[in-house]
Amino acid sequence: MNKVVVNLEDRSYNILIGRGLVNQLPRRLATLGFKKFIVLTNKTLARLYQKKIESLFKEKIDWVIIPDGERYKTLATVEKVYHQLIRFKADRKTGLICLGGGVVGDIGGFVAATYMRGIPFYQIPTTLLAMVDSSVGGKTGVDLPSGKNLVGAFYQPQEVLIDINFLKTLPQREFVSGMAEVIKYGCIVDKNFFDYLLKNSKKILQLHSASLIKIISRSCEIKADVVSRDEKEGGLRAILNFGHTVGHAIETVSGYRSILHGEAIAKGMIYAAELSEINGWAHGSVVQPIMQICEAFGLSSVIPKAPRQKFLKAITVDKKASEGKIKYIAIEKIGTVREIPLLPRDIVMLLP
Amino acid sequence: MNKVVVNLEDRSYNILIGRGLVNQLPRRLATLGFKKFIVLTNKTLARLYQKKIESLFKEKIDWVIIPDGERYKTLATVEKVYHQLIRFKADRKTGLICLGGGVVGDIGGFVAATYMRGIPFYQIPTTLLAMVDSSVGGKTGVDLPSGKNLVGAFYQPQEVLIDINFLKTLPQREFVSGMAEVIKYGCIVDKNFFDYLLKNSKKILQLHSASLIKIISRSCEIKADVVSRDEKEGGLRAILNFGHTVGHAIETVSGYRSILHGEAIAKGMIYAAELSEINGWAHGSVVQPIMQICEAFGLSSVIPKAPRQKFLKAITVDKKASEGKIKYIAIEKIGTVREIPLLPRDIVMLLP
Repeated sequence: MNKVVVNLEDRSYNILIGRGLVNQLPRRLATLGFKKFIVLTNKTLARLYQKKIESLFKEKIDWVIIPDGERYKTLATVEKVYHQLIRFKADRKTGLICLGGGVVGDIGGFVAATYMRGIPFYQIPTTLLAMVDSSVGGKTGVDLPSGKNLVGAFYQPQEVLIDINFLKTLPQREFVSGMAEVIKYGCIVDKNFFDYLLKNSKKILQLHSASLIKIISRSCEIKADVVSRDEKEGGLRAILNFGHTVGHAIETVSGYRSILHGEAIAKGMIYAAELSEINGWAHGSVVQPIMQICEAFGLSSVIPKAPRQKFLKAITVDKKASEGKIKYIAIEKIGTVREIPLLPRDIVMLLP
Repeated sequence: MNKVVVNLEDRSYNILIGRGLVNQLPRRLATLGFKKFIVLTNKTLARLYQKKIESLFKEKIDWVIIPDGERYKTLATVEKVYHQLIRFKADRKTGLICLGGGVVGDIGGFVAATYMRGIPFYQIPTTLLAMVDSSVGGKTGVDLPSGKNLVGAFYQPQEVLIDINFLKTLPQREFVSGMAEVIKYGCIVDKNFFDYLLKNSKKILQLHSASLIKIISRSCEIKADVVSRDEKEGGLRAILNFGHTVGHAIETVSGYRSILHGEAIAKGMIYAAELSEINGWAHGSVVQPIMQICEAFGLSSVIPKAPRQKFLKAITVDKKASEGKIKYIAIEKIGTVREIPLLPRDIVMLLP
């Protein structure tokens, strides 16, 4: 078992990474002092894991089960979860266990942040994307029709338990999508990690346990390090948005349905590399290695067709925008990025 | 002008109290670095003050206007406000100015806490209740059908500007309701203040400026002191709930419509005094002085009729409840209260 500490003063917590770790859940909850708790998950995961989880506990467990999919990451779902918590008589000491991918974690974290102004929560991410990204850093929230994650809160879990066995039931396309964020960590701060990923792409795609534990742990470490130094996106944390400005716009114009988050981010990273070379922000070639690693994992660089105006609109409503100008994360070389402040959105959106 | 500092480390802020202070709003906002901002208020206040506020500024102001009344303190209203903020292209640096009573402040604070995971906000309370209670301490949130303030966040404003001139247009019944919270501060920590209120009830009810500034400042001071020592309701802050356990239950069974918050709290305080005498928690008489001061301000002690089961249900869903047991704030003498932990709800709800 690996352990990554997220240092946030009185909000610090551990991320545990291993194989079969979920079997230790009852002990972990007891250690953390969770007496009463409710499990939040989605329909797909309930079908796969509800019995298994229940078999770990002696007592009956209360479940809140939401539909599966990003299109349910809405205030309407949040409101339904509140009502269920009330039905189960959840009070301020009731823990919320979020078993699922980014959607369950983001909704669950936001519910935990706001139900009775805050109850403790526990994360069990089941997708690669959630393991390496959304379960670290305390960003919670839901989408509005105008854009992703426009409503939310910064709220930290008590602990994150990552069991790589969950990846066995994850569709291949979702696994690959998650790899985009793993690749991002290499791009922004760690060339050695980038090289490791490129060299071991086959083993990783075959879900080789030691490789998975290694890449998830390193990803969590990098994100935890950035988040510890900048919890609320004052500055440094912006580098985590590499590939995300255009990536988010791609998701928005696609209506969040036809494209997965990581697929959009891969396109956004390649686009960012191109923009960095065109504008002379890059020292040497960055497009070629990023294209190569994305291809090795089966991530496409093709940007979906949509009217330029739609892209421009999507980019301006992004949270990273300020007074219509954009903070853009450019890449200098593999392992080094920097923020270009106040870039006019037209320059960012040269393409498509 | 009086100034009360709310000490909360990097979230500290000032409360300014005076007459005609709103005229200084443009200067205050400039000092705090608000470049872009949007004013949130309700229909009644917009009719009374929109032109006046606009006349203070050179540039056009964007307004979000919500309906007037506690029954609109819902997630549905919050969602509408989000959409308006997006329409006005509000970004993370856009300030939200909340001009209104507790409902506007609670909704606005919650929107500010959660829109793009947090934008700066500024409070201009216009009711006595908001001036002395809800604008201090960072509690924000909305009601659910099952209970008051069941959804929310702790989120602090950049500054609170209290202009007693707003009280001139406040209905008398609402002013009196606000006095219940002022009286509460006397009950829980300051017998001298309690005596001052009793002695000066006529001047206060006639809106005598110096008296108003004095009682509002002292109320804010007391609340700020308690909140500074316990921002997130770990312990001490519980004393602010004196009169609130039963008070909230009265509001819930009344459906929040027929009774004002302070009217319910006055009844809750008298009830708490009775319970304290009956159970021997009080040293000497507490019912008589609290009855007397409530009468002096025209606050009734009569608890509305409703089935006992409805009261019991309302009390268990209260945020202060834990595992069905209640933390109850008993009064020992005027100026001293203490928490009785884990009281069975049946004991709390002897009456009606």
